[in-house]
Amino acid sequence: MERVAIIGASMTQFGQREGEWITDLLAEAGIECLGDAGVDADDVDHLYVSNMASGEFEGQTGVPNALAHDLDAMPAYTQRIDQTSSSGGAGIYAAWQSVASGASDMTLLVGGEKMTHKTTGEATDVIASLTHRAEYKTGVTLPSFAGLTARHYLERFDAPRESLAKVASKNHKNGVDNPKAQFQKEVDVETILESPIIADPLRLYDFCPITDGSAALMLCPESVAKEYTDEYVVISGIDGATDTHVVHEREDPTVMGGVVESGKGAYEMSGLGPDDIDVAELHDMFTILEFLQMEGLGFAEHGEAWKLVEEGYTERDTGELPINTSGGLKSKGHPLGASGVAQAVEIYEQLMGEAGPRQVDAETGLCCNVGGFGNCVITTIMEAAQ
Amino acid sequence: MERVAIIGASMTQFGQREGEWITDLLAEAGIECLGDAGVDADDVDHLYVSNMASGEFEGQTGVPNALAHDLDAMPAYTQRIDQTSSSGGAGIYAAWQSVASGASDMTLLVGGEKMTHKTTGEATDVIASLTHRAEYKTGVTLPSFAGLTARHYLERFDAPRESLAKVASKNHKNGVDNPKAQFQKEVDVETILESPIIADPLRLYDFCPITDGSAALMLCPESVAKEYTDEYVVISGIDGATDTHVVHEREDPTVMGGVVESGKGAYEMSGLGPDDIDVAELHDMFTILEFLQMEGLGFAEHGEAWKLVEEGYTERDTGELPINTSGGLKSKGHPLGASGVAQAVEIYEQLMGEAGPRQVDAETGLCCNVGGFGNCVITTIMEAAQ
Repeated sequence: MERVAIIGASMTQFGQREGEWITDLLAEAGIECLGDAGVDADDVDHLYVSNMASGEFEGQTGVPNALAHDLDAMPAYTQRIDQTSSSGGAGIYAAWQSVASGASDMTLLVGGEKMTHKTTGEATDVIASLTHRAEYKTGVTLPSFAGLTARHYLERFDAPRESLAKVASKNHKNGVDNPKAQFQKEVDVETILESPIIADPLRLYDFCPITDGSAALMLCPESVAKEYTDEYVVISGIDGATDTHVVHEREDPTVMGGVVESGKGAYEMSGLGPDDIDVAELHDMFTILEFLQMEGLGFAEHGEAWKLVEEGYTERDTGELPINTSGGLKSKGHPLGASGVAQAVEIYEQLMGEAGPRQVDAETGLCCNVGGFGNCVITTIMEAAQ
Repeated sequence: MERVAIIGASMTQFGQREGEWITDLLAEAGIECLGDAGVDADDVDHLYVSNMASGEFEGQTGVPNALAHDLDAMPAYTQRIDQTSSSGGAGIYAAWQSVASGASDMTLLVGGEKMTHKTTGEATDVIASLTHRAEYKTGVTLPSFAGLTARHYLERFDAPRESLAKVASKNHKNGVDNPKAQFQKEVDVETILESPIIADPLRLYDFCPITDGSAALMLCPESVAKEYTDEYVVISGIDGATDTHVVHEREDPTVMGGVVESGKGAYEMSGLGPDDIDVAELHDMFTILEFLQMEGLGFAEHGEAWKLVEEGYTERDTGELPINTSGGLKSKGHPLGASGVAQAVEIYEQLMGEAGPRQVDAETGLCCNVGGFGNCVITTIMEAAQ
């Protein structure tokens, strides 16, 4: 089967986008991606929108149709993909399927979310509605799971609290060089350790912010890609997998089954293994998640990711496997439907040599997008091609 | 490329499902479909949920993960597909792509919506949020578009008001024999013409009801289908297309571009034409839509669908092309995310010879699922196979 290529990518400024609607953000990224790929809107066959909750956040639904209108892409087929906080990764998988199945020769995927006009309480209420009804009712929301898991991890593996702070500190440092990031400032380990407690032992700076933003990718068959450009990126492996919806039913809280299974599928499809990956974007919604993904994806042994972080293995300029060169969700921000797409935008730019001051030496990259507390995970492996 | 088969189908009772959640309805149809197909939950690779607005209607998101849990289908990959009132058709297209791309060898699609616990005003507010912001603000909602279009159609094509009522009356008559339909009673033309005006000239009985319900399909490659059964159905053509999001920008209000384009694509893929179709389920959310789809899909000349209805051409037991043998949205009900799936369930049962008192003589069938006021349309052509 012919490989699926990515020939264009874009993202808007992430942060607080006051006075703009979700439709504005989607259109901005969509138009920029059409330009980046050199594709006319008329040539787009499928137009996919990754978005969790425009209805809940803005009382606006049908945003894929609004986007088709704003890009003047009719009669391109359009639909919305929602897989909560992994809607972006799910969108990549859906866009990949649209091309690989032959249904579309040119698929524009745009992910976005507009959240900051809501109070933090309102926004987290919407996000919390993805958890199991029984857990939700008892107040065990995603941050609580993160706190419980972090405490268990630190105690069980004898890891220092500082190792988690070092994840946040590293990602903030990377974000300084990302002009699209919500926060472009360094935050040192001491500041993180002294920030307000949210879910003990996790503190404010262990959590990603609430963000507005949008990101986009243009996918097509490799043969079509060659008509547009000499250099592009291919998706060589992709898979998605669920874990239990009831988080407390999991056998080992430090193992995310969805990460393990989707990673396994993506590696198998690409023929690559963890050692072959040059750069990765992991879903650091909470610092502890970066450890769990490093381990689930085979970058570290179980219980030992913290050691690699301590050793600087994941640092951008000096580490063997730079993780979250974009700044991650932690510093770049986490507009739900956009985040998984933006991960792939960063890997695309790294593989194309377009990452500017964040550039690392990479021919292969991996994104891991986590829905809920690992309820559904999509892993994507990308390779530079020409 | 190998064809995509349907090897199982189910639907719940449509109507008012008091005290049940969307997750209950999805699980009911999902479990029944697993049984109907003879497939173990462990063998499901992808689990797709068509649903427009569980977040807005119930404050519950992440329902695909809840369903994976309820069916014990982990680690099956799961996502939600939303294309407003055509979410079901979009789900069929997504499920088709998952199989045709090789990503999944067994995809369970479950569409559902839980709406009747909301007042009619609340429910229609959520639905109206799919329209263009400018039109929405001025109060031009979907029923208004239907009224304006119906008035224009009747005047321009010199069609009698009764012809619209005859659509409703026919579909109600068919619904009498569908034990899963919300309304199982005949409604005569006089009653329809005397019912309260909603959007002149359309009256209460020209509109589908607000409904709870769920429906499911099991899709797999044809080679896999043969391992499970000797008789099955194939999707021989499928396509989706958008029209303008701003309805008043359309050149001719009696032509639904999304119907025309998606129909063209589905016919081309299947190698069939309108004359080859034996039975069809059309999206009769408003009676006028049945005319527009009949014409857009080539079953009638432009402006002449009403004549075929008057002549009895679309009657179940005596007509040449039975339309909405299930009762249609009009009598069966319209649980948004379920409707497009339920259309295909009816065609599946007709082609398998399992439609009981509704059975017609059919080897080929077509479904047309309309999002918004034709903003996005998915057309699916199915054929009996063995």
